[in-house]
Amino acid sequence: MGDPGASVGAVAPLVRAGPQDLTFCDTPKYASLFASSQAGLALVTPQLAEMPGPAARIVVDRPRDALLAVLPCLYRSPARVPGIDPTARIGRSVTLPGDATVEAYAVIGDGARVGERAWIGAHAVVGAGVVLGDDVRLHPGVTLYSGTRVGHRVTVHAGTRLGSDGFGYVFRDGAHEKIPHVGRCIVEDDVEIGANTTIDRGSIDDTVIGAGTKIDNLVHIAHNVRIGRLCLLMAQVGIAGSARLEDGCILAGQVGMAGHRTVGAGARVGGQGGVFGDIPPGETWSGYPARPHKEALRAHAAMFKLPQLIRTLEQMVRERQDAADTEARGRSDAEEHGTGGGTA
Amino acid sequence: MGDPGASVGAVAPLVRAGPQDLTFCDTPKYASLFASSQAGLALVTPQLAEMPGPAARIVVDRPRDALLAVLPCLYRSPARVPGIDPTARIGRSVTLPGDATVEAYAVIGDGARVGERAWIGAHAVVGAGVVLGDDVRLHPGVTLYSGTRVGHRVTVHAGTRLGSDGFGYVFRDGAHEKIPHVGRCIVEDDVEIGANTTIDRGSIDDTVIGAGTKIDNLVHIAHNVRIGRLCLLMAQVGIAGSARLEDGCILAGQVGMAGHRTVGAGARVGGQGGVFGDIPPGETWSGYPARPHKEALRAHAAMFKLPQLIRTLEQMVRERQDAADTEARGRSDAEEHGTGGGTA
Amino acid sequence: MGDPGASVGAVAPLVRAGPQDLTFCDTPKYASLFASSQAGLALVTPQLAEMPGPAARIVVDRPRDALLAVLPCLYRSPARVPGIDPTARIGRSVTLPGDATVEAYAVIGDGARVGERAWIGAHAVVGAGVVLGDDVRLHPGVTLYSGTRVGHRVTVHAGTRLGSDGFGYVFRDGAHEKIPHVGRCIVEDDVEIGANTTIDRGSIDDTVIGAGTKIDNLVHIAHNVRIGRLCLLMAQVGIAGSARLEDGCILAGQVGMAGHRTVGAGARVGGQGGVFGDIPPGETWSGYPARPHKEALRAHAAMFKLPQLIRTLEQMVRERQDAADTEARGRSDAEEHGTGGGTA
Repeated sequence: MGDPGASVGAVAPLVRAGPQDLTFCDTPKYASLFASSQAGLALVTPQLAEMPGPAARIVVDRPRDALLAVLPCLYRSPARVPGIDPTARIGRSVTLPGDATVEAYAVIGDGARVGERAWIGAHAVVGAGVVLGDDVRLHPGVTLYSGTRVGHRVTVHAGTRLGSDGFGYVFRDGAHEKIPHVGRCIVEDDVEIGANTTIDRGSIDDTVIGAGTKIDNLVHIAHNVRIGRLCLLMAQVGIAGSARLEDGCILAGQVGMAGHRTVGAGARVGGQGGVFGDIPPGETWSGYPARPHKEALRAHAAMFKLPQLIRTLEQMVRERQDAADTEARGRSDAEEHGTGGGTA
Repeated sequence: MGDPGASVGAVAPLVRAGPQDLTFCDTPKYASLFASSQAGLALVTPQLAEMPGPAARIVVDRPRDALLAVLPCLYRSPARVPGIDPTARIGRSVTLPGDATVEAYAVIGDGARVGERAWIGAHAVVGAGVVLGDDVRLHPGVTLYSGTRVGHRVTVHAGTRLGSDGFGYVFRDGAHEKIPHVGRCIVEDDVEIGANTTIDRGSIDDTVIGAGTKIDNLVHIAHNVRIGRLCLLMAQVGIAGSARLEDGCILAGQVGMAGHRTVGAGARVGGQGGVFGDIPPGETWSGYPARPHKEALRAHAAMFKLPQLIRTLEQMVRERQDAADTEARGRSDAEEHGTGGGTA
Repeated sequence: MGDPGASVGAVAPLVRAGPQDLTFCDTPKYASLFASSQAGLALVTPQLAEMPGPAARIVVDRPRDALLAVLPCLYRSPARVPGIDPTARIGRSVTLPGDATVEAYAVIGDGARVGERAWIGAHAVVGAGVVLGDDVRLHPGVTLYSGTRVGHRVTVHAGTRLGSDGFGYVFRDGAHEKIPHVGRCIVEDDVEIGANTTIDRGSIDDTVIGAGTKIDNLVHIAHNVRIGRLCLLMAQVGIAGSARLEDGCILAGQVGMAGHRTVGAGARVGGQGGVFGDIPPGETWSGYPARPHKEALRAHAAMFKLPQLIRTLEQMVRERQDAADTEARGRSDAEEHGTGGGTA
């Protein structure tokens, strides 16, 4: 509909879209916003096709999805300018391809190996001996401790720390003595890690994040944890030492997982779930302590009915116990007096 | 009481207050500390007015509150020295007023606009095109991604990241494909944000933090979230995508909120609460899953009484079911044998 | 067994141990990995003593513990090179011993005092007047606000912020007015603090972390909190204002603690526990709200049995109430009709 030659260069929500912007509207709730929108082009649902508003419009069943689908055409990754900033501090024996980008004040330690087209943000610190694959992007202020290995096409957001020492101490002679951490922190290909997340190195074994896994902000992953391929870990998830996630797991926000447990392939855990046992593959669990989701829902529903019943239930239990006591006393009296069982 | 000309220049707790310090005592528990205190002036409750200790004292009902009230007179904001450190890296076409402060090694991207008297801490990174209002303060190591807009009088503490990509992927062809994030991260006037917090930019719409809202440390706010005015979000709160907080909400520490939900104006959620539904305005909710606070308290109280009752209750339910079964069997026997209902 | 002159220089897990590495095997599950291992020396359990694999082996009851015990012999702390990097920004009147290390782009504020052999990482910021003890190590990107004092032999991991303002506001004239924070953040000797953790300074009193306490990643400690000696705080723990932990407490991951509460000496709280009251010394608590651990376990077990019972229980309570109502009605009828109690 509208001008078949309409062209847009960006995407914007209804209220701030201009003549060069593509927008969308998928609910009559926003009809008035739509009516006054300056958008150059709009994606709308069939029901809204005739609504007053921007003339140039495309009718699709799910405008939001359609818009997400065209986003990659309109937005390329931000332009990367190859080159090593003169303030970047590069250690001895560092492998650093000519097409890499190293921004201001980044520090790369001795012996580190940086892949092709890597992009190392301002103030990032790449520890001695760290290995980075091709097309890695470290946003500003990332710290990679020595012992970290990062695969190809990995993105790490600002302030994330990889390869820090795990939390391991032995109490001896009145002090918590630190266990040295000599394992590695390995991040496989195509992983993306959010901002201010922390992933510890292994103690002896390695901590491993499997290929294609995506990790959100403020997540904690402890030493020796093994995360499979294509997992999703949402914000503020915490995983204790030596736990294991098989491939394709999804942990919702703030989930906590105890050490040495396993979440099976494709399993999911609902927000704030507390995982203290193993979870079988493919299942959805939730709650504290985590249980199969339906079971948890039923338990919570029952728990919230309990207050109306509890006094009467207590009374019923008390009466029953009183009755049992009375009966028991009666029996015991009978026994004492030789009237039990007719054994005269 | 005491020397009416007593003057002090600072505030200190009882144990380390000296002759130039104002201190306070509001409980007889600290009578002995008070007796030996070297404070130049003390705020005390009426009950403690005659207690041995510093001679110069002011009797008030609530010494601690009184002391908090005079703090702003004794402590001014730390002095800011205007000027751009020679090591600060300023991009092209940056608007940077002469009275701003930019500390060592800060990086300001191309086209950024910085307000009057702004104070940009050491190692802060202001992305290309970011807009900062007047009297903004960024503490050291803050990262503002491109797409971030910050209002006037906003303070951001060390290590906080604003405008990072949200956690959005579509599973396609065996991989989690990233949804580009082109929305903005908008922080309105008079907001304060604690240390190491993360606030993502919107996907298409914006993420918005309303004017006068205060956010604590290690909080996570996902893409497209809208927080109203004058909210308080305490440490480690996590808010999932597209959730909405109306004005004046208070979320206590570690609260988690599921995506697309709304907390009504002035509502409160207790510590660690898990918000999976909408909360009406003005209500106080708590628990997991969050419910009205009194309901949650009653449910927990009942839950902790349950272990003493559960065996007896199980037995009662079993007996009742056995009785029902027996009766049902009796009925069915009667029907089979033609003895039911006298239909001979 | 094997070559009594075997010598190794490092430790590695079975799969990647080479001839110069010490490894261990404590389960027949890994027999095939062990058989093909190239390790120069292996620690094995008595049961595995004869298993095919590396010839040089030492039989011990607990190979993993034995290996942890020898780790400190094989791995020394990473070498520290004394010296002040020319890019480090040192303020006026700073005390900085010649044997200290200050890495690239670190910033030390006016009047700070740095102890012997201190190691200040790249991009660390030491605020004006901060005091650091001997042998302190700050990893990259740490921020110490003014008002922070750090004891001897303290290690602070990357991105951690100490001494930031606490979250304290008074609502007045339609705005959240900030309470100035003038207390200190005191970290005593031999403390280790993980990555991206935040510890606020006190408001008037101080925030104190006791000697020998160890704190994990992404932990939040609010203003005026007092943590005793030798405590362990695991990842993502959050402690609200003015709470107190006595000596030797252990808080597992994601525990939240309300303000002004006390955890007694040697007490423990299980993962995700929500502490809303005081915990007596030596006890182990868990759950939400936290209760003595056994009580919490029983309550959860009962809660998960409840769904099978709840309908019948509701029915029983209803019948009982109906019966009580009928009886009450009967009594009241009797009274009305003068048939009650034979009072003709």
